[in-house]
Amino acid sequence: MATIVFCTVNKTARSTATRCSSASGRETLRQFSSAHSPSATWLPGARWFSRGTGVRFMSHGTAGRAAAGRIRRGALALGGAAAVTAAAAVAGLLANANHFPRAHMATRVSPAAEDREQEGDIVERCRGFMCPPVTDINVLQGSKEEMRTRMEMLIMETQAEFCRALQEVDGGTFKVDRWDRKEGGGGISCVMQDGKVFEKAGVNVSVVFGHLTEEAAKQMRSRGKVLKGKDGKLPFCAMGVSSVIHPKNPHIPTVHFNYRYFEIEEEDGAKQWWFGGGTDLTPVYVNKEDAFQFHNTLKEACDKHHSQYYPDFKKWCDRYFYIRHRGETRGIGGIFFDDLDSPSQEEAFSFVKSCAGTVVPCYLPIVYKHLNDSFTDEEKDWQQVRRGRYVEFNLVYDRGVKFGLATPGSRIESILMSLPLTARWEYMHEPAKGSLEAEMLEVLRNPKEWV
Amino acid sequence: MATIVFCTVNKTARSTATRCSSASGRETLRQFSSAHSPSATWLPGARWFSRGTGVRFMSHGTAGRAAAGRIRRGALALGGAAAVTAAAAVAGLLANANHFPRAHMATRVSPAAEDREQEGDIVERCRGFMCPPVTDINVLQGSKEEMRTRMEMLIMETQAEFCRALQEVDGGTFKVDRWDRKEGGGGISCVMQDGKVFEKAGVNVSVVFGHLTEEAAKQMRSRGKVLKGKDGKLPFCAMGVSSVIHPKNPHIPTVHFNYRYFEIEEEDGAKQWWFGGGTDLTPVYVNKEDAFQFHNTLKEACDKHHSQYYPDFKKWCDRYFYIRHRGETRGIGGIFFDDLDSPSQEEAFSFVKSCAGTVVPCYLPIVYKHLNDSFTDEEKDWQQVRRGRYVEFNLVYDRGVKFGLATPGSRIESILMSLPLTARWEYMHEPAKGSLEAEMLEVLRNPKEWV
Repeated sequence: MATIVFCTVNKTARSTATRCSSASGRETLRQFSSAHSPSATWLPGARWFSRGTGVRFMSHGTAGRAAAGRIRRGALALGGAAAVTAAAAVAGLLANANHFPRAHMATRVSPAAEDREQEGDIVERCRGFMCPPVTDINVLQGSKEEMRTRMEMLIMETQAEFCRALQEVDGGTFKVDRWDRKEGGGGISCVMQDGKVFEKAGVNVSVVFGHLTEEAAKQMRSRGKVLKGKDGKLPFCAMGVSSVIHPKNPHIPTVHFNYRYFEIEEEDGAKQWWFGGGTDLTPVYVNKEDAFQFHNTLKEACDKHHSQYYPDFKKWCDRYFYIRHRGETRGIGGIFFDDLDSPSQEEAFSFVKSCAGTVVPCYLPIVYKHLNDSFTDEEKDWQQVRRGRYVEFNLVYDRGVKFGLATPGSRIESILMSLPLTARWEYMHEPAKGSLEAEMLEVLRNPKEWV
Repeated sequence: MATIVFCTVNKTARSTATRCSSASGRETLRQFSSAHSPSATWLPGARWFSRGTGVRFMSHGTAGRAAAGRIRRGALALGGAAAVTAAAAVAGLLANANHFPRAHMATRVSPAAEDREQEGDIVERCRGFMCPPVTDINVLQGSKEEMRTRMEMLIMETQAEFCRALQEVDGGTFKVDRWDRKEGGGGISCVMQDGKVFEKAGVNVSVVFGHLTEEAAKQMRSRGKVLKGKDGKLPFCAMGVSSVIHPKNPHIPTVHFNYRYFEIEEEDGAKQWWFGGGTDLTPVYVNKEDAFQFHNTLKEACDKHHSQYYPDFKKWCDRYFYIRHRGETRGIGGIFFDDLDSPSQEEAFSFVKSCAGTVVPCYLPIVYKHLNDSFTDEEKDWQQVRRGRYVEFNLVYDRGVKFGLATPGSRIESILMSLPLTARWEYMHEPAKGSLEAEMLEVLRNPKEWV
């Protein structure tokens, strides 16, 4: 069960890519990250408001921009702490030993040494990726303190961690496709199809950039803020990691996650930026223990940043992954957020890092638990019907899919890798009263609190 | 192979519901309908224009309204002729004998007798339906000269004809669901699932009415004409028959058709009306003979009305059923039209009747031809991949599905009965060069002329 994972090196911690032995998979990042308690504050004026089927977080849009400069050093320190958190998430899952308490590491590295290590770090960290990053390594090294570099490193790491964990349980190998986008940037799609455990597993990274019109920029940002560009054009950069895993066994749920970062440069050179993301679970049958473990792992990661994050983002998730024409959610949710640009860029990145770090500990324990569960043809059929609903959500409602399909130059295969290998539509399918299938539907029609 | 079909009674012909013996299924309506050559003229100012992925027919919108009153008597006469055509389509397919040349029938009925027969006719014709029509039979009898009555009778007949023809070849039985729409009207869904020949066969009738806002009315009509309502509200009536048939054998193509009628009443009591529809074929493998037979049957029906109908509506079909993000059409097309309100209501109805009458002769001969074709697992897999594309088109692009899913009170099961029982999404699926699958893709990427 040994596997290679990488441990990120950062401003406050020294670690190197190391071989960690895999273990029970129940341990999470919690123990490593208790030292990390950022002073996240709920911005005055921050509020929820509802638009369409989604609820979104509204903060004063300039807060992030204004704060970014002021807190840059503190930001990197926090980012470093969060990097440990992310790496620890994997180490925590795969190895109960071989971990370094953050406080201890922080004392070992001098600020001067940090920078040098950070330089070497990019190359070292890239060795653990599924393939070289989208952006040239020299470019990344030359801009290692910029958020777009730090985020690209994070999404590449998240992809590699998750792919390796899935390969280990499946025994199969991901097919890695690197693709370029004519208009700027590209991506890395990792897909494992028809494996032993997984019907279809896709983990995709994309880093795209170029110029947007003011109108497109407005649409890109879900809250529709007006942005001023030079001659009407705005340089932008969008990147993210996204994944959908469809297992064969109907007792292993489907998981989806996506963490993304946007940057748009205005006429005066000021950068508008925001993060988005979330992780959610789509089981075929209700399993309260799995639901608790999944939601609780997310809640603990959220709680480290703000006590309101989990309840708010859990609610947002239930509203976002809602198949309106069916009157049911896609699954049992998790967290979902968008337009996150507060309380500071550093804090927001740190939160995203914590979330990305929970992907493996959220999901893999559930996979291992049900790996050998037996199932009937009827259970498989019900899974296929639920897969059909998954397709309906993704093609009819998912903003990312709709945006991707409508965008010239998009890589369709990467966008649609979220669709299951197989799906089924039965006319007037309605589970028998009192059945386990009816229990699942009830939960999808009336989202529950799992923690 | 005996089956009951109905023969419509109408102004120019006397016939009664009768038992016709089923035959080879290769005969079409052509021989019965040569006497019917309406004086369709291309309206001055009529033209095609392109908007988005569709091309649509643009005529002077008031022509229909102005003409409706003037030609009411002639209209019924033509309608009667067309009714024979529709019935003959079935009789022609299912029975080579027992048919009455229209010209002969026309001489047997006096104009005075016609009206009485027409009255009795509604009840008689309804006996052949899959279940009682959506509108109360007494109401239909009391308004038998109105277009909405004549169209409801036509769509009910088309449903019954097609369902019976499919039942005969499959050996299975349609499940008939009658449903009411709270806001007004309802429908009849006939679905046969997991049959011997058909994986999923759905034939749906809906007749809905109520009030639209001016904005909704504008959206409903694809050319977006501004309509004035009383206090901003416009009484409307929309009805249609639609069907999608997914066979099990990959050598039997999927077929889809839809014929519909809209009526909106403006502030001054004037009625805006238009027809839409089409029939198209989605094979898994190219079969030129099938493609010719299908398109030629449609062309002959179109040519009776206007020599430009087939070429224009064929092109429109290729443009409408286009999966933009894949750069391919859904199938090999057929005909598609919308907003048809010229040259007169009677002429337009007559054309729709002819089209509806070709459904069985377009499709059933192809089904019978390939009924016992053997197929491999690879061919079945390719069919499943093409089914996936079918789902993509229907959920992402189809205007009817999108309108239905977004409309409160819609019957979702009827809208989504068009989805196949099973579908498949393979990452980066690309057929081998020179394979039959690649030949199919080539045709979908570059639509051909089949006639």
